[in-house]
Amino acid sequence: MNVVSYRPEPGDLSYTFGGRPAVGRVEPGTVLELYTEDCFGGRVRGLDDLPSKVCEFPYLNPVTGPFHVEGAEPGDTLALHFVSIEPARDWAVSTTFPHFGALTSTHTTATLQPPLEELVWLYEVDAAKRTVRYQARRGDFSVEMPLDPMHGTVGVAPAANEARMTITPDAHGGNMDTPELRAGVTVYLGVNVPGALFAIGDGHCRQGHGEVCGTAVEAAMNTVVAVELIKGAVTPWPRLEDDDHLMSTGSARPLEDAYRVSQHDLVTWTAALTGLDELDAYQLVSQGGEAPVGNVCDTNYTMVAKLPKAYLGGPEVYGSAHARLRALGAEYLSSR
Amino acid sequence: MNVVSYRPEPGDLSYTFGGRPAVGRVEPGTVLELYTEDCFGGRVRGLDDLPSKVCEFPYLNPVTGPFHVEGAEPGDTLALHFVSIEPARDWAVSTTFPHFGALTSTHTTATLQPPLEELVWLYEVDAAKRTVRYQARRGDFSVEMPLDPMHGTVGVAPAANEARMTITPDAHGGNMDTPELRAGVTVYLGVNVPGALFAIGDGHCRQGHGEVCGTAVEAAMNTVVAVELIKGAVTPWPRLEDDDHLMSTGSARPLEDAYRVSQHDLVTWTAALTGLDELDAYQLVSQGGEAPVGNVCDTNYTMVAKLPKAYLGGPEVYGSAHARLRALGAEYLSSR
Amino acid sequence: MNVVSYRPEPGDLSYTFGGRPAVGRVEPGTVLELYTEDCFGGRVRGLDDLPSKVCEFPYLNPVTGPFHVEGAEPGDTLALHFVSIEPARDWAVSTTFPHFGALTSTHTTATLQPPLEELVWLYEVDAAKRTVRYQARRGDFSVEMPLDPMHGTVGVAPAANEARMTITPDAHGGNMDTPELRAGVTVYLGVNVPGALFAIGDGHCRQGHGEVCGTAVEAAMNTVVAVELIKGAVTPWPRLEDDDHLMSTGSARPLEDAYRVSQHDLVTWTAALTGLDELDAYQLVSQGGEAPVGNVCDTNYTMVAKLPKAYLGGPEVYGSAHARLRALGAEYLSSR
Amino acid sequence: MNVVSYRPEPGDLSYTFGGRPAVGRVEPGTVLELYTEDCFGGRVRGLDDLPSKVCEFPYLNPVTGPFHVEGAEPGDTLALHFVSIEPARDWAVSTTFPHFGALTSTHTTATLQPPLEELVWLYEVDAAKRTVRYQARRGDFSVEMPLDPMHGTVGVAPAANEARMTITPDAHGGNMDTPELRAGVTVYLGVNVPGALFAIGDGHCRQGHGEVCGTAVEAAMNTVVAVELIKGAVTPWPRLEDDDHLMSTGSARPLEDAYRVSQHDLVTWTAALTGLDELDAYQLVSQGGEAPVGNVCDTNYTMVAKLPKAYLGGPEVYGSAHARLRALGAEYLSSR
Repeated sequence: MNVVSYRPEPGDLSYTFGGRPAVGRVEPGTVLELYTEDCFGGRVRGLDDLPSKVCEFPYLNPVTGPFHVEGAEPGDTLALHFVSIEPARDWAVSTTFPHFGALTSTHTTATLQPPLEELVWLYEVDAAKRTVRYQARRGDFSVEMPLDPMHGTVGVAPAANEARMTITPDAHGGNMDTPELRAGVTVYLGVNVPGALFAIGDGHCRQGHGEVCGTAVEAAMNTVVAVELIKGAVTPWPRLEDDDHLMSTGSARPLEDAYRVSQHDLVTWTAALTGLDELDAYQLVSQGGEAPVGNVCDTNYTMVAKLPKAYLGGPEVYGSAHARLRALGAEYLSSR
Repeated sequence: MNVVSYRPEPGDLSYTFGGRPAVGRVEPGTVLELYTEDCFGGRVRGLDDLPSKVCEFPYLNPVTGPFHVEGAEPGDTLALHFVSIEPARDWAVSTTFPHFGALTSTHTTATLQPPLEELVWLYEVDAAKRTVRYQARRGDFSVEMPLDPMHGTVGVAPAANEARMTITPDAHGGNMDTPELRAGVTVYLGVNVPGALFAIGDGHCRQGHGEVCGTAVEAAMNTVVAVELIKGAVTPWPRLEDDDHLMSTGSARPLEDAYRVSQHDLVTWTAALTGLDELDAYQLVSQGGEAPVGNVCDTNYTMVAKLPKAYLGGPEVYGSAHARLRALGAEYLSSR
Repeated sequence: MNVVSYRPEPGDLSYTFGGRPAVGRVEPGTVLELYTEDCFGGRVRGLDDLPSKVCEFPYLNPVTGPFHVEGAEPGDTLALHFVSIEPARDWAVSTTFPHFGALTSTHTTATLQPPLEELVWLYEVDAAKRTVRYQARRGDFSVEMPLDPMHGTVGVAPAANEARMTITPDAHGGNMDTPELRAGVTVYLGVNVPGALFAIGDGHCRQGHGEVCGTAVEAAMNTVVAVELIKGAVTPWPRLEDDDHLMSTGSARPLEDAYRVSQHDLVTWTAALTGLDELDAYQLVSQGGEAPVGNVCDTNYTMVAKLPKAYLGGPEVYGSAHARLRALGAEYLSSR
Repeated sequence: MNVVSYRPEPGDLSYTFGGRPAVGRVEPGTVLELYTEDCFGGRVRGLDDLPSKVCEFPYLNPVTGPFHVEGAEPGDTLALHFVSIEPARDWAVSTTFPHFGALTSTHTTATLQPPLEELVWLYEVDAAKRTVRYQARRGDFSVEMPLDPMHGTVGVAPAANEARMTITPDAHGGNMDTPELRAGVTVYLGVNVPGALFAIGDGHCRQGHGEVCGTAVEAAMNTVVAVELIKGAVTPWPRLEDDDHLMSTGSARPLEDAYRVSQHDLVTWTAALTGLDELDAYQLVSQGGEAPVGNVCDTNYTMVAKLPKAYLGGPEVYGSAHARLRALGAEYLSSR
């Protein structure tokens, strides 16, 4: 097993997808051990560390990478299997942020109202017990919620020579902020440039659907990713696969367009996998599909379209890449 | 136990919320046994029964009712507990419909493209086995999916002397098309007119999230509802409660506004139930909340905001109406 | 010439389209002299008359009518030609209103921010000089703007047995709030119920595009309307005609859907009037059309699609109803 | 007068804002004579030159530049005054394009419908007579419309190290596609990177509001621009000034957000220029403002908010840059 570890120094972090040279090169088949910083670059560590004070635009939402995948070319698909995602600290943080979030006016949903108060919440993270603890800022209300680690941001360099802020999700991936992106899941990303140039960041100990206040339970992570390359397979929007489901994503505005993109991809993917007529696939997804909300706060909104594989009669997906990567991940975990 | 049965003749069905006199009067505390027709008025019974041929606008999506609830006045809240929802036939139906659905242009998302082909799918319903069977129109692909009965449409007469087509969801309820509205759930609706004038229809044997093709597995239903009235309690948007969750709904366009309405109601409701500061409630919902998609195909889109009651420390909700109605429903079921 | 005058008492005013019997009957060919109240029912008369204090929901945006037009049946088109629209007082009023307007959160674009301050602005109206005078609330800044009177609200009873608040624009007309609806313009409205049941209100001395703060320079009006009926002509969305232009409207959310509806209607109308292929009409409208914004603050947004008649080679529109009504209006005016 | 001419070779054209070195350097005060190619790179020259055949993604919408402006730094404002914009050929072209435009489904407003037919329209351009001639593809309908040249695309390198396709409008400018950007107008752009790196392209002989079919009357242009730099002036979104009006732009989705951004900027700019309270400025813009639609077809939609300078009592705007550049342009024109 080819295992590579990488821990970036602060100056190594990236703030865009595209527009930056690789920090390293990896062979398909590699298991990659990564450290990722939280969305605040680790600068919000206490209740008085207001993001607007301690962070500096555009140095937000750092990602670890980009990595050049040997042999990756436009028209291929990169498969990233998340073997494990574990909080790197015993605390995590969430905040409001001026004019960011779903229940506030923003820079584009512009109003003349003043912003909501900027506040920080600190969470205790108990990795053994698998919980995070919420503590109200006013009053002594406190409650435990399950630890459910995920990455908000994963992507490749965009097409068309673009470079995009890591805060933005689009066809190249990016800041999709979907809780579906947890350990055990394989992400498929269409390759737009030689080497793919993927990067990962924005770990969340857990997240509600839509990330309504604009931030999740933000945490640095130790994450293990298994990498594979599927030659000659085109993937128009990021797709996910777990043991039981296929998932398509869409990132756009308004939110119904994110829904349309994700459902359209799932319908046409279903038709391609099963040989079903497109309208038959439309009908099947209509009755059997789920639609987990990703984010409703970022510069594009993200929706996921999700279908049990059992409804499709067990088709072969991306040459069974998920099963292979799952096995590789299991081998890695049992070797530790 | 006060049990009342009502089975409408075709001429008794309603096609609006508001603008119609009651078909009957019920006392709070009543258990109501209802028959509801499917959204096509039972006219689509075979593959050749195209809705655009056998149905006539605006006689679509009939509801059973409205019922006048004794003592209900504006400013009260009506609680409807769904004791059981059972398919009335051993078949159900779904269709595409010209310029209706999420993956087609529509009358408002107007394009110059021709509509998708209008097609009917018939489903076998096995109430004993708790399944429905999908059968592709082209090819012999077939698959069973779980039976998960729900009502797409429930509501009261709107405020401001309005009458709204039953196809439209809004603050009065209506065609929310959320799978969360299944047996075991209590729906809370703000009363706008004397008697509330509630009605129920649009049964689905199951539905994917968003009802992407525009129709679910549509079926006539035998449904049992327990009715209660909460005096002096204002409910701005329809809310749902099951044994484990609180839910707020929002119906609006674009879809992010439906999300905002539902999350805003859940945040302010959470603050009111717990005494939490509004920003503290915002943070709690942000990390602990779910956002099941209702519909992304109707004249307004519907989102649900959902929170485990366990996160709130067991607050008393609407004077424990759900627990009382749950018990009444159990008593009814054990008496059959 | 058949001239009828009607001045409603406060109790005669209507607050919905649909759901109300007619206040009078008119023959096609009639010239109707009407008094319309302002959107606040005349209750905001000074800087201290905050709408949220002196007005009571849902008694906002009163309209004069509805009028039953003899012979009008579903499938016909009602033509209303605005002969003159003149302010009834020498003052007018505008306000902010809690959670209403484009640069504030609203009940559907819901945020946790407090509303903007509620303020009243009084305007001097000089009907002789054809000006209104803006006066800042803080400081002594003042400026004259041209008087350009219009009606924000005109419509008929909706289809499908609906009744809609007068604040809402849709396919039946209603609160479109377009400055294009001024004297000299003919409005075409599809008839949905016997008698059409049209009503008019919400006079504005002038209005910016989109009515961004939520209210215009609101005024009671003395308005003269000439009425004609075009049998057997279907009009899907309200259309306008002046001496030089054809206009289609669309009212929907999001705003791009209002744009799509209006442009789609103008394209298909252009094709029908000229015999052009639909894609040829699409191209012609794309290069020659205008898109005046109506409102971006009401429960639906309104866009207008506008094309010079000169580009169409002088087609006959609605049997030349506009020319006939223009002549009738001129005759009326010269007879005063 | 410092006059510089630049005519790019095909290989010199740019397809992004940002991510490319400058093609030249200019001093503030320079008059720049530029040639710009049409949005198809000049490859669509006849009815059979379908864009999807003769053009290759992402080599669409080329711009001339970028130019490094000496002394420009982040936090400054670049002023570009369009002295003249003249068609370079006696023909121009427009097309439909698969899944692009407002009356078709698109890659984000995704549907299962096939695209509209791809068609090319050729226009005769008569620069002396100041007309373009539309000729229907089916039938012999033809009509002249006024020549009204403009640039669809003008912008600088974006903030946050981004590179964006030239097809996209945003805070850095880009493909705003507003007919307001014609000769006689000064455009103000906030500088994000040293040298500003501005570029210009996408000339239109004329354009309807919203560019509903997705393309205007597309033409190569000979364009003269006068350049000035305003040190220490922050411009959040592109602004325009002509002799009589101030204009703010907003580019976002949904379309109401583009409206909000543009109106918000105009309101706050008005308050800053006049000393008016923000709510007083809101009221003034509400009654006196216009809202010309830019595009409703690109990856972001664009709205313009426009106010007569006369309503503001003649404030000094950007140190009277427009007047100075106007004079410089007049001097240039009289010297030819």
